[in-house]
Amino acid sequence: MKIYQTHKAPNPRRVRMFLAEKNIEMNYQEVDIAAGDNLTPEMKVKNPTTKLPFLELDDGTCIGETVAICRYFEELEPESPLMGRSALEKAQVEMWQRRVEFHLLQPVSMCFVHSTGFFKDRMKPIAEWGSASGENAIAYFEALNEHLSKSEYLVGDYFSIADITLLCTIDFARVVKIRVDEKYTHILDWYERVSSRESAKA
Amino acid sequence: MKIYQTHKAPNPRRVRMFLAEKNIEMNYQEVDIAAGDNLTPEMKVKNPTTKLPFLELDDGTCIGETVAICRYFEELEPESPLMGRSALEKAQVEMWQRRVEFHLLQPVSMCFVHSTGFFKDRMKPIAEWGSASGENAIAYFEALNEHLSKSEYLVGDYFSIADITLLCTIDFARVVKIRVDEKYTHILDWYERVSSRESAKA
Repeated sequence: MKIYQTHKAPNPRRVRMFLAEKNIEMNYQEVDIAAGDNLTPEMKVKNPTTKLPFLELDDGTCIGETVAICRYFEELEPESPLMGRSALEKAQVEMWQRRVEFHLLQPVSMCFVHSTGFFKDRMKPIAEWGSASGENAIAYFEALNEHLSKSEYLVGDYFSIADITLLCTIDFARVVKIRVDEKYTHILDWYERVSSRESAKA
Repeated sequence: MKIYQTHKAPNPRRVRMFLAEKNIEMNYQEVDIAAGDNLTPEMKVKNPTTKLPFLELDDGTCIGETVAICRYFEELEPESPLMGRSALEKAQVEMWQRRVEFHLLQPVSMCFVHSTGFFKDRMKPIAEWGSASGENAIAYFEALNEHLSKSEYLVGDYFSIADITLLCTIDFARVVKIRVDEKYTHILDWYERVSSRESAKA
């Protein structure tokens, strides 16, 4: 079993941190996406979307999508659950995971690809959309700070995959010079709590 | 318990169809988003993102995000599971759910809001991004058709929430004049199978 990844990107880090929280050891194979090594015919058979990370099982079955990989291990090794314990908590984790993805990770990613031209050999950047996406991401910090004023983690006092997603997003956002303003003290307190976990080094 | 929704939008339909597959009865309260009835201070307390649908439990707890609402009922009423049965199947459902969302539902939604100006009173449409998003959505049909040439549903012979998402997306795409080309026979065969389910009328 192994995971194909690019070490510096935010989505592979989400998976590494998730597995570290569960004490699951993993083999990682680095793929050079800038060189297009994810776009070869052999790789497209395994991973048609060409996005990283993806998991290859010993029988050759491949699972793409960050959260799908995490869900596989959540189900396989349910100790230290990171996707919720009760029905309500599972729904709340799903809700916050998606809020962070839709309102922060995706806008930051859009800002990155449309502003920097990092993938301009394989898609057409639209600068105006890159800029608007960056503004949308920054605008979400207000609501997030308000929520974290009442909650230790995104879902009450329960550390979850949603916190992993938020940490990896905030760190990734530095690439496009988006930082949490010092007025958002509740986000910054949360950041201290989560970034000091051993798994954050994974 | 009730769900706040706009009947015609694709995300509330995903939830209605999911609940219909599980034979769960629900109360729905219609919200006029064009009039901004989702933006009032009272509604923002319940649902800070202002997106629909959201679920309100009898104790006042609110759950936003389509898939979070579905997950709540999947956990609460695990008969007729729609999010997978084994660890591998749950991962595959998550993978296809997200592929359809990222490569089809979100591009179609972006095309809708950035091309039609439907929400131009609350966000600035970028026509070039709307147009590119429509092209991205159409481009995904090729990979989808290839996959459905080998698979009865998105995850083998198992009907899942991912199929619900795909059906609701294809039907919604008509609003921006995106239709499945007749050359994509495997998608059209799949469409026949899924749209003829009783739950598709929900």
